[in-house]
Amino acid sequence: MKLPCAELETLAARALERAGANPDLARAAARHLVAAEGQGLPTHGLSRVEQYVMLLSSGRHQGAAHPKIVNEFGATCLIDAGDNLAYEAVELALAEVTRRAAGHGVAFVGVTNSGHCGVLGMHVEAIAAQGMVGLAFANTPAGVPAWGGRRALFGVDPVAAAFPRKGADPLVVDFAPTTVVRGKIMLAAQKGEPIPEGWALDREGRPTTDPKAALDGGSLFPIGGAKGAMLSLMIELLAAGLTGARLGFEADGLFDAKGNRPRLGHAFLAIHPRGLAGEAAYLERVEDMVKFMLADEGVRLPGARRFAGLRGAQAGGLEISEALHARLAALAA
Amino acid sequence: MKLPCAELETLAARALERAGANPDLARAAARHLVAAEGQGLPTHGLSRVEQYVMLLSSGRHQGAAHPKIVNEFGATCLIDAGDNLAYEAVELALAEVTRRAAGHGVAFVGVTNSGHCGVLGMHVEAIAAQGMVGLAFANTPAGVPAWGGRRALFGVDPVAAAFPRKGADPLVVDFAPTTVVRGKIMLAAQKGEPIPEGWALDREGRPTTDPKAALDGGSLFPIGGAKGAMLSLMIELLAAGLTGARLGFEADGLFDAKGNRPRLGHAFLAIHPRGLAGEAAYLERVEDMVKFMLADEGVRLPGARRFAGLRGAQAGGLEISEALHARLAALAA
Repeated sequence: MKLPCAELETLAARALERAGANPDLARAAARHLVAAEGQGLPTHGLSRVEQYVMLLSSGRHQGAAHPKIVNEFGATCLIDAGDNLAYEAVELALAEVTRRAAGHGVAFVGVTNSGHCGVLGMHVEAIAAQGMVGLAFANTPAGVPAWGGRRALFGVDPVAAAFPRKGADPLVVDFAPTTVVRGKIMLAAQKGEPIPEGWALDREGRPTTDPKAALDGGSLFPIGGAKGAMLSLMIELLAAGLTGARLGFEADGLFDAKGNRPRLGHAFLAIHPRGLAGEAAYLERVEDMVKFMLADEGVRLPGARRFAGLRGAQAGGLEISEALHARLAALAA
Repeated sequence: MKLPCAELETLAARALERAGANPDLARAAARHLVAAEGQGLPTHGLSRVEQYVMLLSSGRHQGAAHPKIVNEFGATCLIDAGDNLAYEAVELALAEVTRRAAGHGVAFVGVTNSGHCGVLGMHVEAIAAQGMVGLAFANTPAGVPAWGGRRALFGVDPVAAAFPRKGADPLVVDFAPTTVVRGKIMLAAQKGEPIPEGWALDREGRPTTDPKAALDGGSLFPIGGAKGAMLSLMIELLAAGLTGARLGFEADGLFDAKGNRPRLGHAFLAIHPRGLAGEAAYLERVEDMVKFMLADEGVRLPGARRFAGLRGAQAGGLEISEALHARLAALAA
């Protein structure tokens, strides 16, 4: 069934409010989930409402809390999400990081005591919309071992960047440094199929093609082996070390009503080109890159498909399954 | 043969001065190359002197030029390396980025019109030595295609980060997002051996196991496929887009006396924890991470082996081949 984005936002926000989210958080989360669905990312879209309701209802998140700036110095500050879901804190962080970068040329804002923050690449779009280069880092419950290690240690931590363009959608990159997401391994386990080498490690840190061994205390394979593990360590220390958040191995998984308060961390960086090459020269360099990329057929600009999907959804509504709609309606009733 | 580091530095600096490097640059480059040799990275050590002499003698670099700050705003600035080798500009960039971050909490400094900058992970150590988290990005002549593309487009661009620790060497990560470096493919070609799948692409952008096809207009395979290509794009736009430097596909290779002025770019980021979790909390989080990593036997701290090697070399001298010493002596004579 096809429904207007606004209607789905209201439905999702109502479901989250029912579970204890304050109205600002509920709106911020609903906006993000509907936009993710519109960008063609259903794993980070409205299917998450049920998970968030569970995390709020169980007390793993404190729905009433509003984010607060708890420390600051110049172009940096720390926001405490108050053990709530991430979205209101992330909106505050994006406002702070762009405001501070406008004054200092660059800014770095951390968020602590937070939760799952959705699609990192969508958050950095707000930085690019101000004419600045935006980067973001987030940690998650552990899923990746240090290189040579057996136990999952770092989160499946995403990094994202948005580069503004002249009169066009920004270039957006967004990925976690693992070969695949856990969901793909779960799917193989359900079907009883083996997984390719290079997807996962078993609980002893050995490469495995058995999805069950991967899921039973195993971990995800970092891209490029040692290199992806190094990138994970870097993201983890930027997102959680600098913000005082829990490290990946300290946070319980987010798909269970039982567990600790996740207290995850995120960090946002905004860089204004004015004190560097200047805005005109920066924008020209990006167009030179885009031109060269598109001259090679088979290459598409990162983020392009997502923006096209979102525009379609905003204009003509969002296609969601009747089952998902029924679940949302029940949670909102 | 084993020689004191100071003696090798003098020898390398003299060789570079002979080729036209100003004394400050010659010293800065020599210090870096000897330290890289000491850290156990001979591919980025004294063997590079000959290459740099060639780049200076051929006019691809302007040895007399000193770096200059050509633009600035708050916590950001741009340094023009004046078409010279990178090392003097990088030392200025590190001084600027730590000074500005001390005042603003975070700083971002770009370098343009530069050259090969050596081991990026060694440069960020200087940021960690000031109690700040350091990141660096650099671009190089093209070696990696956009995902789905045929032509090398992005450089084999390294990213590095250093995280200061309490009373211990910093954690240092440093890698380029390709499966292997080009040197490994050259070695296989010399031996007439095939290369494993996932190392390289041929000139049509197809995976290849033939090292000759990889070297003849082909390119390097990004780690994690599309993900490594996205990381390359991100590094390229940070290091070259924001600094107005040449993009990877515009810079001629650095192993030939013929070619354009490379005009590569680098960028350095310093983040002080004081406006975030605070220094004490940050340092504690890093130690928690280190403890958990080392509890898993088989895991070693990134950078640890390099620091141990360097201390050994500083105390007891550096082992280099007689052939390399003879080449250096001839260039310095």
